[in-house]
Amino acid sequence: MASIFTRIVQGEIPSYKVAENERFYAFLDINPMAPGHTLVIPKQETDYLFDIADEDYQALMLFAKRVAEGIFKAIPCKRVGVAVLGMEVPHAHIHLVPLQTEADMDFRKEKVQLSREEFERIASAIAESIQ
Amino acid sequence: MASIFTRIVQGEIPSYKVAENERFYAFLDINPMAPGHTLVIPKQETDYLFDIADEDYQALMLFAKRVAEGIFKAIPCKRVGVAVLGMEVPHAHIHLVPLQTEADMDFRKEKVQLSREEFERIASAIAESIQ
Repeated sequence: MASIFTRIVQGEIPSYKVAENERFYAFLDINPMAPGHTLVIPKQETDYLFDIADEDYQALMLFAKRVAEGIFKAIPCKRVGVAVLGMEVPHAHIHLVPLQTEADMDFRKEKVQLSREEFERIASAIAESIQ
Repeated sequence: MASIFTRIVQGEIPSYKVAENERFYAFLDINPMAPGHTLVIPKQETDYLFDIADEDYQALMLFAKRVAEGIFKAIPCKRVGVAVLGMEVPHAHIHLVPLQTEADMDFRKEKVQLSREEFERIASAIAESIQ
């Protein structure tokens, strides 16, 4: 069965897209740790990040860098943090999280609530900032 | 002034090294979230990960993948998680953390206490598992 992320890539489940190319896709996490929290995924389903072939992995990481640079321009923050845990959805995904302090990277804390309009505005702002 | 990580690379501050090449260095975090928690750094000091030039960044990420593969072989775990926060030390560093559950990636939880002998045994086991 297709992962929830594959269904997002295929447009079967809606998402707030921030970037896409032939191989990769980036969209807002709908349960964000901070506004602008983005997930970056390969379109091809691989469960575990480090099982991705070297060349594809390096290309994914470069795509994530471009997205992180866009987030950094669009969202006031000190850093864009990175996290990959990947046990809940069996489709490798990179969290990019705008950080004011290190404590902002906390998977246990209460998530930020945003309206659909806020998600759309943030996704557009990031998309426009990506080179 | 040289960062604490540059002083580690230069051998001025001791570390439990797991891997090294001309450009990158990997060593055990002495305040680990789990046994085998490793830090991967570029030898050249750059504060923010995404300020590293694309080619160097991609090479760093590939080096981190080799180290993560070694950790996965040497340390019983479900995944090797990745995190980059990078506000406490102004020298980009990638956390590689053996995970049993997603909750293991928690920067606030109490750190694991290990003896010097345990650190040395873990560092050797990972070093030997890196291809």
